[in-house]
Amino acid sequence: MALSEFALIDRFFSALTPVRADVVLGVGDDCALLQPSPGQQLAVSMDTLVAGRHFAPGADPVGLGHKCLAVNLSDLAAMGAAPAWVTLALTIPTPDEDWLAGFAEGFGALARTHGVQLVGGDTTKGPLSITVQVHGQLEAGTAMRRDAAQAGDLVYVSGTLGDAGLALLAERGLYVNPDTLDFLRGRLHRPTPRLASGSALRGIAHAAIDLSDGLGSDLQHICARSGVGATLYADRLPMSPGVAEYVADTGDWALPLAAGDDYELCVTVPPHRQGEVEALATRLPGGLTWIGTTDACPGMRVVLPDGRQIDNIPSGYDHFARD
Amino acid sequence: MALSEFALIDRFFSALTPVRADVVLGVGDDCALLQPSPGQQLAVSMDTLVAGRHFAPGADPVGLGHKCLAVNLSDLAAMGAAPAWVTLALTIPTPDEDWLAGFAEGFGALARTHGVQLVGGDTTKGPLSITVQVHGQLEAGTAMRRDAAQAGDLVYVSGTLGDAGLALLAERGLYVNPDTLDFLRGRLHRPTPRLASGSALRGIAHAAIDLSDGLGSDLQHICARSGVGATLYADRLPMSPGVAEYVADTGDWALPLAAGDDYELCVTVPPHRQGEVEALATRLPGGLTWIGTTDACPGMRVVLPDGRQIDNIPSGYDHFARD
Repeated sequence: MALSEFALIDRFFSALTPVRADVVLGVGDDCALLQPSPGQQLAVSMDTLVAGRHFAPGADPVGLGHKCLAVNLSDLAAMGAAPAWVTLALTIPTPDEDWLAGFAEGFGALARTHGVQLVGGDTTKGPLSITVQVHGQLEAGTAMRRDAAQAGDLVYVSGTLGDAGLALLAERGLYVNPDTLDFLRGRLHRPTPRLASGSALRGIAHAAIDLSDGLGSDLQHICARSGVGATLYADRLPMSPGVAEYVADTGDWALPLAAGDDYELCVTVPPHRQGEVEALATRLPGGLTWIGTTDACPGMRVVLPDGRQIDNIPSGYDHFARD
Repeated sequence: MALSEFALIDRFFSALTPVRADVVLGVGDDCALLQPSPGQQLAVSMDTLVAGRHFAPGADPVGLGHKCLAVNLSDLAAMGAAPAWVTLALTIPTPDEDWLAGFAEGFGALARTHGVQLVGGDTTKGPLSITVQVHGQLEAGTAMRRDAAQAGDLVYVSGTLGDAGLALLAERGLYVNPDTLDFLRGRLHRPTPRLASGSALRGIAHAAIDLSDGLGSDLQHICARSGVGATLYADRLPMSPGVAEYVADTGDWALPLAAGDDYELCVTVPPHRQGEVEALATRLPGGLTWIGTTDACPGMRVVLPDGRQIDNIPSGYDHFARD
């Protein structure tokens, strides 16, 4: 295996993503050359997935190709940015053609769905690890930031919560319901970046974040950066049938409240924009569900269906502790 | 060690690089927000360095911090772009404070030298690996590309050739001259990105590339993409005293012609601009040396001092084969 094989991989990948008019020069020179749109700001995010830590070494390459791009696109969604370009640093032990074809299939399909062009990167030999950087654009001054929530905002989330966490429980044999397993595993391994929701909410919502670490941890970032607190209502949490059944069986609200990897959006909305958000909720994939309100009281509280109140949402879900 | 320690590292690093007015939002949100300058294009490059492949696992972290940024800045230099922003994906086995402080010192010092701000990235636990992406800007349509050489162009290189290769020979005990060892090791472990040269040559040179794989390999990329050949003159190759002595001792011209890792620039210049380039050569760090001419004859030739001609420049230097 020669170094040149690795260089060729970059070109192989680049042919699988769309060709954009604002890419002046793509893969194959010292740099890619990109033409930002006038008046726009760039939003960039970089995430690394490491074998044995973020995924099993034998994980399905199609799913991996999808997920490593999806988690980055989810960050663009959380700012309300429109995705444009992506770079990929792929470190692999050997240039296994089947693995690469699968990875490229998953990566390329999601890139085409969202009109994102692969413009550069690096392919190296080493322990399996994937770093992706996405580049999006949005009108200057309109990004949804973590520090922009105000007390009295309405807290909304997209999609359903706890699905990826329950899939992990099932994969470990801890709680398996065959009826919902396929759906849950799809949610874990092929998350849907909520780009349409992020774009539609920009200009309406105050603050936003994507749910990678779990609702409790991630909403806490908004609260801390914005100097507000929040009260959530457990019976309002959007749950798929599998998670709803799990919570009914076990009483374990920590799953929808604290498990990560759902890649849904959590936004805070000023009350006078509620009508617009409810209208969006009816037409956006995954919808939007009101789950609580920000307030001036520091910290986060959850009111359970029986009226009891949890004053400390777990900041991570024990089953998933990776350290 | 908790995941949160890794998140904190990102913030620790970001404080070590300059604060730029065009960074609307840096480390700490879902995305960084950047304001491109009107009328400019973006140049982006991403490179990965993997322990055990690109550097020894016990390598000096200060040098590593420098080098992982330098090799990326060198790509911006080769397009003639002005560096602006950088992202860093750092995968490390443990959050070793001494190692991190050293790495950040090397990375931060070079970033400050060139006014580059760290705006995002990811720190994860895993086998040591570093991926850096740099973002530069240049006036639309002015980038030096690999495909823009024309037959009859003059070929110039910056700095001296073969220094990093000779340092590797020395580190392996194959050819050691104590008088030049420190200089050579500095060239290998702390390469100088030729940003001033790239910027000055933009608008004058036709094509450019940075010398990472060796003069033979890299100039061949320009030739292949531009549809030209080249003839080089060995007695014109700029060499430091250590490399000149090595070649005099061994007759091994493959070192300056084919060894990699020097990160000098190689450019092709139309003959009518020669006066401007010679004037730049006197004031730019590292200078610029004419080494040959492109022509319409495919392939590359080297005329040795004794008049013999090599028709195939080695495309890699055997001592450095890593596969």
